[in-house]
Amino acid sequence: MRLLTERLTAVVTVADDGGSSGRLRDELDVLPPGDLRMALAALCDDTEWGRTWSDLLQHRFATGGELDGHAMGNLLIVSLWERLGDTVEGLDWVGRLLGARGRVLPMASVPLVVEADVMDGGKAGTVVGQSSVARCGGRIDQLRLRPADPPACPEAVRAVLDADWVVLGPGSWYSSVLVHLLVPDLAAALHATSARRCVTLNLSAEPGETHGLTAAEHLAALHRHAPRLAIDVVLADRSAAGDLDELSSAAEALGARLVLAPVARGDGTPRHDPLRLAAAYRDVFEGTPAG
Amino acid sequence: MRLLTERLTAVVTVADDGGSSGRLRDELDVLPPGDLRMALAALCDDTEWGRTWSDLLQHRFATGGELDGHAMGNLLIVSLWERLGDTVEGLDWVGRLLGARGRVLPMASVPLVVEADVMDGGKAGTVVGQSSVARCGGRIDQLRLRPADPPACPEAVRAVLDADWVVLGPGSWYSSVLVHLLVPDLAAALHATSARRCVTLNLSAEPGETHGLTAAEHLAALHRHAPRLAIDVVLADRSAAGDLDELSSAAEALGARLVLAPVARGDGTPRHDPLRLAAAYRDVFEGTPAG
Repeated sequence: MRLLTERLTAVVTVADDGGSSGRLRDELDVLPPGDLRMALAALCDDTEWGRTWSDLLQHRFATGGELDGHAMGNLLIVSLWERLGDTVEGLDWVGRLLGARGRVLPMASVPLVVEADVMDGGKAGTVVGQSSVARCGGRIDQLRLRPADPPACPEAVRAVLDADWVVLGPGSWYSSVLVHLLVPDLAAALHATSARRCVTLNLSAEPGETHGLTAAEHLAALHRHAPRLAIDVVLADRSAAGDLDELSSAAEALGARLVLAPVARGDGTPRHDPLRLAAAYRDVFEGTPAG
Repeated sequence: MRLLTERLTAVVTVADDGGSSGRLRDELDVLPPGDLRMALAALCDDTEWGRTWSDLLQHRFATGGELDGHAMGNLLIVSLWERLGDTVEGLDWVGRLLGARGRVLPMASVPLVVEADVMDGGKAGTVVGQSSVARCGGRIDQLRLRPADPPACPEAVRAVLDADWVVLGPGSWYSSVLVHLLVPDLAAALHATSARRCVTLNLSAEPGETHGLTAAEHLAALHRHAPRLAIDVVLADRSAAGDLDELSSAAEALGARLVLAPVARGDGTPRHDPLRLAAAYRDVFEGTPAG
């Protein structure tokens, strides 16, 4: 996306409870910084300066001691938060350091806990915590947040309302994508915005939280969590579209047209190719019919 | 000094074994970064950008947990070292981040241990480690390093050889100033350089390592550790000069003229005023007779 425009805001989940982020969240009582760091690093300026600081942010200590596993960027972000006393200002300073194209904002102003009702081999249960949800292995029925009514980040709400296009996905379907619909003010903005809405499907189901789900079922899960959210475009790679009739129907149920475009790397791995994805977004945003 | 010129190299001790630096040195097997961080922060560009990153470098975690007591800048520096695999390159990147005036280099390429022979109440003993030496309380007779023959940082040696002026002090007399004379290649450069040499005296004795020492005795300690090192100028504040005849004699023993200048803050605290010190250095470097 940063290849298309610098007027870009990434709104990022703050429910991580594992690894370096989980430890910082516990030790410092701050938002988990990991997903914010990843988004910032991805937006870095493509110069020696931008790449050096981006690499540094992604550097992880491997010491066997008290720093073991911490990502440098997480420590930098939480230090800026402690120093400046303002989440958004701190992230903007990291963005400036990286020469970032665009802005990264948290979806909520408080740390979140993700909770999922899961069916596992005919047994219903509840899984608590993003890291547990991500590897739950069962079939997620419903996702919830604690607190249930977290304050959204006002700048993120503003960005959604002011956008030309809002893009949901790709990403861990429940814990990174659908979770945005559970923050009331952010969900309201996603419904109210005059922006057009694009859903970008993943290139494969994930072993943990979407194991066995077809592309159409991904859309059905979205529909279940936001029944009144109208989508304009569903963007999918042919290789991961599954049954096309089924997927078209699922897109129609959201009010969307289905756009198939070659956005995978093409090396067999389920990863998006940044340039191909940028080309597809350009075509979608400019209304060019899919090839 | 940075108020006078940007052609400035601070050569900094790497013998710290206490606090955040000591823990990082143990956990990561790297140079202790704390004294380097302090020097870099002091050289930051005096803009919002420079001050923000300098403040961040100086930020210290207070968590009661595993990060407690760590200075953010220490973590940043050691991450750059791990990432880039080069001590000087890492420090230069921090300098670039801060828009630093001048450069900061370590005096040696390996972590050092400081060891002192101390007379305490008529009892001779050996104190090991910079943090212990700094609070030993006795009278330091002789300072040693482990390893005894550490490799100097080549860029620091080059800077000393290429300098117009070399300034020793102010600072913790044994553990930050005299210790430079114990790194063989650095000491050789200090003797061989065509630069003129200035010794800037402290504004008070320090409770730990120089308790009870007069200004003249500070110079005598320098003379004892480098008997053939010729000094051009000894710079002292009147308030901390002690007996002027005694101090002049001690300066003469080093081949130096004594320059008295008002370089203290003037608020009664034993701290140098950066602007007054800059004015005194300008006068010394330009050969203006002292006021």
